[in-house]
Amino acid sequence: MISDKMTAMVKNSSAIRAMFEEGTKMADQYGAENVYDFSLGNPNVATPEEVNRAFVETLQQEDPVRLHGYMNNAGFEEVREAIAQSLNKRFATDFSQRNILMTVGAAGGLNVILKTLLNPGDEVIVFSPYFGEYRSYVDNFDGKLVEISPNTETFQPNLKELKEKITIRTKAVIVNTPNNPTGVVYSEETIRALAAALNEKQEELGTAIYLISDEPYRELVYDGAEVPYLTKYYDNTIVGYSFSKSLSLPGERIGYLVMPDSLTDADNIISAAGVANRILGFVNAPGLQQLAVAKCLDSKSDVEYYNRNRKLLYDTLKQLGFSCIKPEGAFYLFVKSPIEDEKAFCAKAKEYRLLLVPGSSFGCPGFVRLAYCVTYETIQRSIPAFTKLAENYFGGNS
Amino acid sequence: MISDKMTAMVKNSSAIRAMFEEGTKMADQYGAENVYDFSLGNPNVATPEEVNRAFVETLQQEDPVRLHGYMNNAGFEEVREAIAQSLNKRFATDFSQRNILMTVGAAGGLNVILKTLLNPGDEVIVFSPYFGEYRSYVDNFDGKLVEISPNTETFQPNLKELKEKITIRTKAVIVNTPNNPTGVVYSEETIRALAAALNEKQEELGTAIYLISDEPYRELVYDGAEVPYLTKYYDNTIVGYSFSKSLSLPGERIGYLVMPDSLTDADNIISAAGVANRILGFVNAPGLQQLAVAKCLDSKSDVEYYNRNRKLLYDTLKQLGFSCIKPEGAFYLFVKSPIEDEKAFCAKAKEYRLLLVPGSSFGCPGFVRLAYCVTYETIQRSIPAFTKLAENYFGGNS
Repeated sequence: MISDKMTAMVKNSSAIRAMFEEGTKMADQYGAENVYDFSLGNPNVATPEEVNRAFVETLQQEDPVRLHGYMNNAGFEEVREAIAQSLNKRFATDFSQRNILMTVGAAGGLNVILKTLLNPGDEVIVFSPYFGEYRSYVDNFDGKLVEISPNTETFQPNLKELKEKITIRTKAVIVNTPNNPTGVVYSEETIRALAAALNEKQEELGTAIYLISDEPYRELVYDGAEVPYLTKYYDNTIVGYSFSKSLSLPGERIGYLVMPDSLTDADNIISAAGVANRILGFVNAPGLQQLAVAKCLDSKSDVEYYNRNRKLLYDTLKQLGFSCIKPEGAFYLFVKSPIEDEKAFCAKAKEYRLLLVPGSSFGCPGFVRLAYCVTYETIQRSIPAFTKLAENYFGGNS
Repeated sequence: MISDKMTAMVKNSSAIRAMFEEGTKMADQYGAENVYDFSLGNPNVATPEEVNRAFVETLQQEDPVRLHGYMNNAGFEEVREAIAQSLNKRFATDFSQRNILMTVGAAGGLNVILKTLLNPGDEVIVFSPYFGEYRSYVDNFDGKLVEISPNTETFQPNLKELKEKITIRTKAVIVNTPNNPTGVVYSEETIRALAAALNEKQEELGTAIYLISDEPYRELVYDGAEVPYLTKYYDNTIVGYSFSKSLSLPGERIGYLVMPDSLTDADNIISAAGVANRILGFVNAPGLQQLAVAKCLDSKSDVEYYNRNRKLLYDTLKQLGFSCIKPEGAFYLFVKSPIEDEKAFCAKAKEYRLLLVPGSSFGCPGFVRLAYCVTYETIQRSIPAFTKLAENYFGGNS
């Protein structure tokens, strides 16, 4: 009796989640310490202490009627203003609270902006590999997902193919940098070239093409990598942010959209996004979370912990013979499967209690994703398992 | 550049919200104490102290990685089990955690279940007057809202018309008792008759018709009114609950769906609802809120405060010559407009700084809604304004 769309969704239900549940079962069976679960982007680094303190202080100090009550669908005014000013300070932008809409995480924000923009049949372009949920979000509004094929050497966007695939129906392009699943950060040069390509096509077609920058990993970068703030390079940029990873709060569902005044039709987009937040059933981002994170805009989770994980896992895998681009951000490694059928590779890995996600889930078969937001000890303990796994493919040469 | 649906939505943007914003403006201009804002269901009774305490204790006692992390999309297992057991104790039902899905308020829950059930063109029946957002929620999934005309004397459901309007495309019927905007509670007799009507049509058409019971006001009843638990009367009942009103937490976005095993296709509905929660962008209900409310399942906000408000406002309006059904639950009065055009009546009321919502927003023109979840003092101070308003219609006889 469920809808046709959901019938298909349930059937193909996210490989990531299925893996997560299988991991739980295996942990029960073999003991959690004997299962090496690299399948889910659930941070194992605790939220900074000041974040928990901010939650408690908010509860103790705020008038409960105001704290827990409805506010503007876009969020508390002072929270939005604090975020605008924080962005202005960090990135020399010029936002005010009117440009900020508080959302139920980045997933909520993406749905709000797609609801705002898409007519049925409108096209949304993504660069493979991409976070698989984009497909569902676009489908929620009967949009059509258009994939750009990956450069599997650099995982930088293929702008030539982008230009070829933009049509009169292209409403938006989604980018995600630092990237899930590759960890790649788009350089300023790349961003400039992307902006030039989009501007050229806008002019040629006489349309507005919105660049949606999905940025849950903005704060998680290594080796001093810089992540350019995209609104400064392309006027029709909308940013979706989340505190899930930067403050290790994924279950608390708090993020925001940035809708600059430079957008084509900015007033209508800002109004419509507020209405969309309401009618999609979010109504508003949770109030307590809004007020708490506003007190912690300069905080972030322990990136050095992830960096240590990154080094250990990357070095281990390279030494064993695997090939993989070195991530500059996020907490994922995107490893080339030693055999063409990466699902068979994942199945083999599972024999050693290593849980990996097939690249097909990200529109990029032939690769697998490892989330290294686990404990350092998990990686240490997993090394013998990876060693045995490697022996299946690279003989005894490692 | 926004979508056609959103263009229409923004244009007709909720009269309630517009009124709310106008109220804020008037409060700035005349002073908050001189504006009598009965427009929004934003509780003015603080959450019980133990609820705030439960939030703080959860933050102080839980492992932050678990507390703030991702969990099953349906919610924390122990929270869902606690809710199932609480329902079983109160209503002699037989639920387990598998029947409970934690949601971003009732609005989130309704969107999840409509996404789960509706194919484009499927019909969802509502009884006028009804919460206006139902129209938007059904439209999110390209469903068709079908209205049953009101009995403006009793505001009990017209079951004869219900049976006439059920077709092969009828996927769901939404009820809301205690009702927004009338405050009416459906009696056990009514529920039995409703169940019989639905069973008869299911058998006749060979379809499953789901009864969605939207119950944010379940705990807010007066004079010992009983609110029957609908899953006990009709197998295909799905309950949407929210803590927004019962614990005065509307901005915190926490509620749940109950999907009994007795549902036709229960397994698929339960699986699909979990996936829908994820792909609609909720992902999961906020984790902290889940753990906090689970500790307060026997608490409720001060219903006696609303009862005092109800009595004062109802008695005042009746004495002034207005006519209105006496509400048994929720915190709304649905007052007959003394003139046919209730929007003109609302405009007149605004001249006395009385903010009311036109019944047209609830599919029931000729009436206006007053939300009495304000302070008692607001009602006291508003009496002279209502008196002057009444003089426009009932002469000097009051």
